[in-house]
Amino acid sequence: MANMSVDDAMRRAITLAARGLGTTSPNPVVGCVLLDRDGALVGEGFHAYAGGPHAEIVALAQAGERARGGTAVVTLEPCDHTGRTGPCTAALIRAGVARVVLAVNDPDPVATGGIETLRAAGIDVRTGVRAAEAEAGNIAWLTAVRRDLPYVIWKYAATLDGRLAAADGTSMWITSEAARTDVHALRGTVDAVLAGVGTVLADDPRLTVRNLRDGSLAIRQPLRVVVDSSGRTPAGARVRDAAAPTWVATAAEVGAGPDGRVDLTALLSALYRRGVRAALLEGGPTLAGAFFAAGLVDKVVGYLAPKLLGAGPAALVDAGPRTIAEVIDLEYVDVRRVGPDLRITALPRKREG
Amino acid sequence: MANMSVDDAMRRAITLAARGLGTTSPNPVVGCVLLDRDGALVGEGFHAYAGGPHAEIVALAQAGERARGGTAVVTLEPCDHTGRTGPCTAALIRAGVARVVLAVNDPDPVATGGIETLRAAGIDVRTGVRAAEAEAGNIAWLTAVRRDLPYVIWKYAATLDGRLAAADGTSMWITSEAARTDVHALRGTVDAVLAGVGTVLADDPRLTVRNLRDGSLAIRQPLRVVVDSSGRTPAGARVRDAAAPTWVATAAEVGAGPDGRVDLTALLSALYRRGVRAALLEGGPTLAGAFFAAGLVDKVVGYLAPKLLGAGPAALVDAGPRTIAEVIDLEYVDVRRVGPDLRITALPRKREG
Repeated sequence: MANMSVDDAMRRAITLAARGLGTTSPNPVVGCVLLDRDGALVGEGFHAYAGGPHAEIVALAQAGERARGGTAVVTLEPCDHTGRTGPCTAALIRAGVARVVLAVNDPDPVATGGIETLRAAGIDVRTGVRAAEAEAGNIAWLTAVRRDLPYVIWKYAATLDGRLAAADGTSMWITSEAARTDVHALRGTVDAVLAGVGTVLADDPRLTVRNLRDGSLAIRQPLRVVVDSSGRTPAGARVRDAAAPTWVATAAEVGAGPDGRVDLTALLSALYRRGVRAALLEGGPTLAGAFFAAGLVDKVVGYLAPKLLGAGPAALVDAGPRTIAEVIDLEYVDVRRVGPDLRITALPRKREG
Repeated sequence: MANMSVDDAMRRAITLAARGLGTTSPNPVVGCVLLDRDGALVGEGFHAYAGGPHAEIVALAQAGERARGGTAVVTLEPCDHTGRTGPCTAALIRAGVARVVLAVNDPDPVATGGIETLRAAGIDVRTGVRAAEAEAGNIAWLTAVRRDLPYVIWKYAATLDGRLAAADGTSMWITSEAARTDVHALRGTVDAVLAGVGTVLADDPRLTVRNLRDGSLAIRQPLRVVVDSSGRTPAGARVRDAAAPTWVATAAEVGAGPDGRVDLTALLSALYRRGVRAALLEGGPTLAGAFFAAGLVDKVVGYLAPKLLGAGPAALVDAGPRTIAEVIDLEYVDVRRVGPDLRITALPRKREG
């Protein structure tokens, strides 16, 4: 096999890592490529699910004795602790690799320390290779672990004039089946789906990940969270069915803000402790507004149907700004057609100091 | 020069025609390519402004004697009447062309008849070459002439959640300078710019075509039309300045609908009689809603800023639909970034029988 540069190996490792997106939580996605002492690719792997082998272990198993004297190229700092699996640092030392190249340091206080352990064992460690690219591939997990709160994606579906439903409340369907299928794929990448009790009362959504054609459920279902300050979720609501775990989060359980409603930071903190690293905020406009007002939204995914209503509920309500100078600034990072609709992905712009 | 196929010549003629966009009104855009009897390109031209020479005349003048026995490839049926210039049919016959190939028949009852005149003179006439493409290039003029009402483009600028302004009415600026410059270019392609008196009272816009950096005015200015049912436009409004012609259209002058407001079909009819073929409907949401409710919008151009407000006036109000089944269906035809903003172009979908 032709030799591979460390840079190309890292690019490959980042691609491998992405294959774990949506199934590794509460762990990060990680990819690893092993080169022998001559630079030939002798092993590769990615972390596929929590409790399963780490990327380094998969790659080392492939490489066997050829890893000795070689280079491990890995997207995230190898873990140094014994969780559900043994520490990767020990496995790398045992295999006799001469060098470890990594992209992003591990911000998790429990898992970090890998670099020091490797160096103490005489391994040459290089950091920061393709760091921005690897960081982007793990952004939800990294953001969550750095601040102990889940990464929150606000998803909405509206007409071109920003309406969620018609004046009489009807909304099925504003967006196409293609867009709704895309939403289910998006749900499949997160650990929790959040909705306000207003949406549950109005639309009785299932909030599961399923095949829209035959209704079959995905094997892995995110936690369904109803933000329900005073506990109004009906006993017979679909969100309470057996298809997926559900948490009806009340102010009594989570804690209330000054307005008596569920304290959203406390809610997110509780979700983090339950292992939620990425959460999808879906419906309604008031809950979304409260998340924006609290500065708790990390990403916006909007499905814009080529339709106009001119009346009906707005996509976002009470988000904070009273005047144009207070507008919430975003930046488009992706715009594409999904069937007849547009999917717009945007990130909040950091306010300058 | 290498020989050119008739199909390639028509493609070239359509490209030439587009160079007249925005300056030919109330005439259409037209392009013409002349091939000699061997198929070599010997002349080309486009109609640049009303009162100026037609495309065929420009091309014939270039070709001179080489047109004899050749082919005239023209995007629109040559005119058969004497307006500000003589009929093109007579010029083509006089020049001795053997064949005329055209894309779109002229729907104008005054100018039509060209095909019959040419055939009566023994010229071989072929129609419908690249017709869809030529039609698209002249869509505003063709639509207007076919129904005696201007082609109406609704332009709006809003946040991603469909707000025109913040809760306190401030809106400068929601979109970027790049987007606003693009709007001035759009104004430069139409014959009239329409706004409701509410927008005039709230924002006191100029509604001129100008350079945003130095304020200098374009040479050609569309007619400014204030839709002002009861005549509330202040004497000192900017829209009344000397920078461009202005018409304050009142219900008393135009005629009123059942609601006492300006009858919009009567307004458009009056504008058509004044030579307006394409009109840009800008601000406010209520006037836009009334145009949609009357089925009078032909195209939508929306500038969506990557911003969220969660409060403030909506982009479109009272457009007709009360329930989701009555939603106004559009189709995206173009989506592109303009600076940090998105420009979305959409066309109303025809309702199926």
